[in-house]
Amino acid sequence: MKQELLNLDDAVAVLERTPSSLSALLVGLPDTWTRATEGDGTWSPYDVIGHLIHGERTDWIPRARHILAGNTRPFETFDRTAQFKESEGKSLAELLEIFADARQHNVAALLEMHLTDEDLRRPGVHPELGHVTLKQLLATWVVHDLDHVSQIARTMAKAYREATGPWSAYLSILRDREK
Amino acid sequence: MKQELLNLDDAVAVLERTPSSLSALLVGLPDTWTRATEGDGTWSPYDVIGHLIHGERTDWIPRARHILAGNTRPFETFDRTAQFKESEGKSLAELLEIFADARQHNVAALLEMHLTDEDLRRPGVHPELGHVTLKQLLATWVVHDLDHVSQIARTMAKAYREATGPWSAYLSILRDREK
Repeated sequence: MKQELLNLDDAVAVLERTPSSLSALLVGLPDTWTRATEGDGTWSPYDVIGHLIHGERTDWIPRARHILAGNTRPFETFDRTAQFKESEGKSLAELLEIFADARQHNVAALLEMHLTDEDLRRPGVHPELGHVTLKQLLATWVVHDLDHVSQIARTMAKAYREATGPWSAYLSILRDREK
Repeated sequence: MKQELLNLDDAVAVLERTPSSLSALLVGLPDTWTRATEGDGTWSPYDVIGHLIHGERTDWIPRARHILAGNTRPFETFDRTAQFKESEGKSLAELLEIFADARQHNVAALLEMHLTDEDLRRPGVHPELGHVTLKQLLATWVVHDLDHVSQIARTMAKAYREATGPWSAYLSILRDREK
């Protein structure tokens, strides 16, 4: 069964690397890059880091605990725009530090759960998606990181769309997620 | 003119951060991630780093020098599969070090060119795309980095496609670049 491919060590290996990879990419970068968006209603790299922080606070570990406690009521709904208020007044470097601290804390919390295969199969109820498992939650945490790493790279790339001239034909990233 | 948005300091800011960001993401990661591909004919993160090294050796700075020397013959064609032979026998950590050294060397070479606005408008001939400028070449170098950062994140994410279960509906990265 392909879902068995989720290996906790593999998942943690990505989760613990995301903050340092994003800090190496973003700390000290000009606003040209960090405040760029893909257009109206899309997020800048700055916005994305705030969203990742909100996930650390309200989504992944709280939902894992909710499942392990045997709760049958649905998870709290995740607020997808909380970062616009929560990031106010903070520099990107500050947000990246907050994210790194929160992630380190949450990975430690995950490891302290000493999850068994049986734990990983425990069920939860998502408010929109219905029946899910702890294993699926943890896999989603990893893929969610990677989705946003990709989004940050794509958003930055599009800031130079016109500047690449004829080469844009070869740079598929400039057409990703375009309507 | 939007092409004027290419600012050399902004471009260098990304170019000099790519190696450390990729090393922070990839060094020590299990093969589950670094040898994953998106399917037949697609590249693993390991393959991508080899491709980036080949670009440092044969593409960006050599083409910039070709333009600055006033050459009117087309650039040498870039070999898109050179990494399969060149990376043989090397670990990913070794490749990432080679990439970091080559990039550091090339960013230094770029800065030593002390490019003026007039230099940036100098023309070159691409073997397939025809007339291009030095400015477009440098913008493409940056966007090419970001395209491959995004590709690495996407490729890793797809290794957990099934593991995310119902959440895959929310994870658009799992559908990027799918036919």
